[in-house]
Amino acid sequence: MAQSREELFQATLQSLDIAFEDEIRGGANYEAAIEDAGQFYVSGMIPRMHGKIVVTGRVGETCSLQDARRAAQICVLRGVALMRQSLGSLDRIKRILRVNVYVQSAAEFTQQSEVADAASDILYAVFAPDGGHTRTSVGVYQLPKNAAVEIDMLAAVHDI
Amino acid sequence: MAQSREELFQATLQSLDIAFEDEIRGGANYEAAIEDAGQFYVSGMIPRMHGKIVVTGRVGETCSLQDARRAAQICVLRGVALMRQSLGSLDRIKRILRVNVYVQSAAEFTQQSEVADAASDILYAVFAPDGGHTRTSVGVYQLPKNAAVEIDMLAAVHDI
Amino acid sequence: MAQSREELFQATLQSLDIAFEDEIRGGANYEAAIEDAGQFYVSGMIPRMHGKIVVTGRVGETCSLQDARRAAQICVLRGVALMRQSLGSLDRIKRILRVNVYVQSAAEFTQQSEVADAASDILYAVFAPDGGHTRTSVGVYQLPKNAAVEIDMLAAVHDI
Repeated sequence: MAQSREELFQATLQSLDIAFEDEIRGGANYEAAIEDAGQFYVSGMIPRMHGKIVVTGRVGETCSLQDARRAAQICVLRGVALMRQSLGSLDRIKRILRVNVYVQSAAEFTQQSEVADAASDILYAVFAPDGGHTRTSVGVYQLPKNAAVEIDMLAAVHDI
Repeated sequence: MAQSREELFQATLQSLDIAFEDEIRGGANYEAAIEDAGQFYVSGMIPRMHGKIVVTGRVGETCSLQDARRAAQICVLRGVALMRQSLGSLDRIKRILRVNVYVQSAAEFTQQSEVADAASDILYAVFAPDGGHTRTSVGVYQLPKNAAVEIDMLAAVHDI
Repeated sequence: MAQSREELFQATLQSLDIAFEDEIRGGANYEAAIEDAGQFYVSGMIPRMHGKIVVTGRVGETCSLQDARRAAQICVLRGVALMRQSLGSLDRIKRILRVNVYVQSAAEFTQQSEVADAASDILYAVFAPDGGHTRTSVGVYQLPKNAAVEIDMLAAVHDI
């Protein structure tokens, strides 16, 4: 029997040993997520779990490709957790439209796509067959709180 | 009596000693702003006033956090000025959906969120209670014309 | 007699000596482009032709402004080629809404707008009089595969 998105999401969290606080919130003066006119906007997520940034550093220098991929997994799953929290159910997601992946990069690090792949894989796994998305990945100079990766997303949602 | 958005906008400009030229325009071959299908897109704004970039430099090195926050205020208010100019009235804004904040950062500068907060505060003040927005802030290596900050925006608009 | 967009597109490719493989595809786990609810999303395009990245390096250091402008032309034309491939005809494009231009920049390079202008010029030429678009251009630290420029786009499309 096919697994539900909820089951796939929980299984993914468990297999990667990733968990978030009970309620994910935005900053003092911005929203973590907004739904408007059939679209769901997710703010830039950094690899935060229970109030702590768990993957920091410059990828290719003080942060390995493997650690950066884990950071990307945490960012994207945090975004999915926000969808679930805000929309009540992941079934309200029609499809993922766009994902922006910012990698805090060393001067010679050019594997931003390989970092982003770790996030894309998760979207495919949880939302299959509707996990396809457009993507832009770039290497930036610094990210808030020295996070190794930051990811924001846009999704299309079904009306209630 | 509650103040109108127009009053709040003008009061904010005045209190921060910020003013723009009478008509804000895009570049030779792109638009400063576009309205389409209930959404209003604002191009990347740099801290320009009357044709001059007023806050330049690398934040954390040749530009202070305080100056960068002022740059963010100018960028976001320039975007709001564009909304007003293009839409005729700020009352046509339904809500702010997304704000991207690019900070020209020093290698060790990780307070991009603190810079972005200065822009978010203004959106809350002018558009309350509809000023909430999703946000992504990153530290980039260089910005056009050595601007310290660049901000673009997306808003939902009411039909006329 | 006015030229069609298809004619303008082909003439632009020819005059710049730019050509792409017969079918442009996304990565293993993301889509090159998605159409949803009247909007068409294009993933971040790098200056790739027939599987090879043809303009690499850091602009202002190991890549000239002129080469970066050619990179921007290839990126944006690759995006237009994707529109044509996915939508069947460029006539389905209602207008270009947003263009993000990421330039892999040297520490002192501040002409990101001049790089982006080369892309904007092409959109104006192919889609005139509907080629106007909002734009954000920033200088990033590293791009995937050492590409000199990366460009993503959002367009409004007509219903079929």
